Amino acid sequence: MTSDTDYKFEGWVAHDASSVDGNMKWQTYTPKPFTASDIDIKITHCGVCGTDLSSLRSGWKPADYPIVVGHEIVGHVVRVGSNVTDFQPGDRVGVGAQCKSCLQPGCRPCNNDMEQHCPDEFTTTYDARYKEDGSKAYGGYARYWRGPASFVFKIPGAIPSEIAAPLLCGGLTVYAPLTDNGAGPGKRVGIAGFGGLGHLGVLFAKALGCEKVVAISRSASKREDALRMGADEYIATADDEQWHTKHARSLDLIISTISGADFPLDKYLSLLDVKGNLIQVGAPEDPMPSFSAFSLLVGDRKVGGSTIGSRKQAREMLELAAKTNLRAWVQVRPMSEANQVVVDMDKGNARYRYVLQNE
Amino acid sequence: MTSDTDYKFEGWVAHDASSVDGNMKWQTYTPKPFTASDIDIKITHCGVCGTDLSSLRSGWKPADYPIVVGHEIVGHVVRVGSNVTDFQPGDRVGVGAQCKSCLQPGCRPCNNDMEQHCPDEFTTTYDARYKEDGSKAYGGYARYWRGPASFVFKIPGAIPSEIAAPLLCGGLTVYAPLTDNGAGPGKRVGIAGFGGLGHLGVLFAKALGCEKVVAISRSASKREDALRMGADEYIATADDEQWHTKHARSLDLIISTISGADFPLDKYLSLLDVKGNLIQVGAPEDPMPSFSAFSLLVGDRKVGGSTIGSRKQAREMLELAAKTNLRAWVQVRPMSEANQVVVDMDKGNARYRYVLQNE
Repeated sequence: MTSDTDYKFEGWVAHDASSVDGNMKWQTYTPKPFTASDIDIKITHCGVCGTDLSSLRSGWKPADYPIVVGHEIVGHVVRVGSNVTDFQPGDRVGVGAQCKSCLQPGCRPCNNDMEQHCPDEFTTTYDARYKEDGSKAYGGYARYWRGPASFVFKIPGAIPSEIAAPLLCGGLTVYAPLTDNGAGPGKRVGIAGFGGLGHLGVLFAKALGCEKVVAISRSASKREDALRMGADEYIATADDEQWHTKHARSLDLIISTISGADFPLDKYLSLLDVKGNLIQVGAPEDPMPSFSAFSLLVGDRKVGGSTIGSRKQAREMLELAAKTNLRAWVQVRPMSEANQVVVDMDKGNARYRYVLQNE
Repeated sequence: MTSDTDYKFEGWVAHDASSVDGNMKWQTYTPKPFTASDIDIKITHCGVCGTDLSSLRSGWKPADYPIVVGHEIVGHVVRVGSNVTDFQPGDRVGVGAQCKSCLQPGCRPCNNDMEQHCPDEFTTTYDARYKEDGSKAYGGYARYWRGPASFVFKIPGAIPSEIAAPLLCGGLTVYAPLTDNGAGPGKRVGIAGFGGLGHLGVLFAKALGCEKVVAISRSASKREDALRMGADEYIATADDEQWHTKHARSLDLIISTISGADFPLDKYLSLLDVKGNLIQVGAPEDPMPSFSAFSLLVGDRKVGGSTIGSRKQAREMLELAAKTNLRAWVQVRPMSEANQVVVDMDKGNARYRYVLQNE
């Protein structure tokens, strides 16, 4: 099925959990059969997301090895299926963490701009199989990407490709819960955890015009960065045992990008004003920390979760990023160094997102 | 200060935690000093709320004995302070679980119809002290009640007093989270736990015109009652190990009136459709049961809490109850039997709310 292309699919193939230690192999692989609704993308950039590492190490579930990770993909269209009308070769496009849903008339999520919750055919961009034929979905640590055009987005001209890449998963993951929970003028927003997702949370909360944006991290080491990104305040929880009482009831919304189970959820909840929400994003490998019912009852607070976002939100997010000249802080690394980049990412060295670039 | 009345304040005084075993004493006590903004009510009815028992036994916190419990109070106005313009002697009125807040211009909750979250002067109707003079607030297991007119509500003529009483705390406690979270036409609502609060939850969810109302209880013993109250379905969780998978994603909102810590929160969350909310009401003495982060992330669900409701919501609730002829299921018992009623309530015998009636 790939013999009708003059390019071949090759990329960083992971064969087992040791791949997260820098043992991915550069190899060819067979992509899904090309269909009339598919598109091929020649990849220029791919962001390195925490999910990539979890998948490489089979963190949440056993990975369906061999896999190729990467779901912050940007590149140019090189082939278009006969039923695809939105794209043509040469278009600069991107793909995020989801590459397919059923999109059927009877599907409530798909018909209400919530296709990330399609119960029937939610398909992740890698470590997944297409329902129609059982073929594997492969990600973006590679030369080319093939998949359904329906989850591909045009990248606005104002956004450089290396900036666009991390928006496609990381950006959407924070943008969706911000807008779902009313972030904007007059709202005081906290971003808990200040890594790849957290820094995008600060940038988007500012882009949305929030009244106050507070970065919350364990150490003070990233304070200057956060303020340069536009944060109005920075709380270093390790520096002051009373951080939660000092800032009690000061926020309307917290987006938590913290993934460990040992964070003091009760203290974070105490930062919320009446009717405030704390939304957990990303996908921690651990269960939620326990907390007191009174932390919710006092002030009618809520704890929620959010999983990526919809296609509508992805398009809105890209428009907002273009309009506000939003600049993710990225470190561009050659695709050939992917193994080392994964190791560096695992060490927590990213400031704040690695982006792999094809030569 | 009470010498200027021709009635005396007497009621069921609790002196220690043994009072919950039927050891309240019928005695006189000194109410707060009467001020220009106060009102005296001659009590005809007082509902028996779970909170009464928790307070009697010092369940959440050490009670400030001696106390008089009861915060579902209905009666007639017998005295009005000189600054009170909304009431006159003879009016049939009620008081719920909150009797005061600061109501100051600078208070965000008080100025946004959320005075139940006033940080400065939230005062419960009993087992509390008035900030202004340190005097005690006494509740409704008594002949008379004295307190600020600002948290007293007129009872619509269409609602009998014994029906109105349990609405003032129990009714408001379920009505507020229902309306805060969109209960109404097109919405599928579950009520978890089917006791005093739960039966009011079913009645108000129906009164609000919800598409489907599902009562969820451990045993099947209350099925017929729930269906007679208008529930569309009844789930007896003890009867079917697969109750949570059978009903997965079938509800938009769950009001949980369950107060134990051992309930399977993950299973209840799995009943929620995309963007669904589970709201814990009442005030469990135990912490929330632990649950998986994925229960929130899958479907962008939320777990929240709700504490009574605002005065605006209390008035709306009473209007709705009057308009829809809502009938709480009450068992009227003489005020003289309060000790036995408390014991019966503690045994779980209420079907579904005891209401004490003065002779």
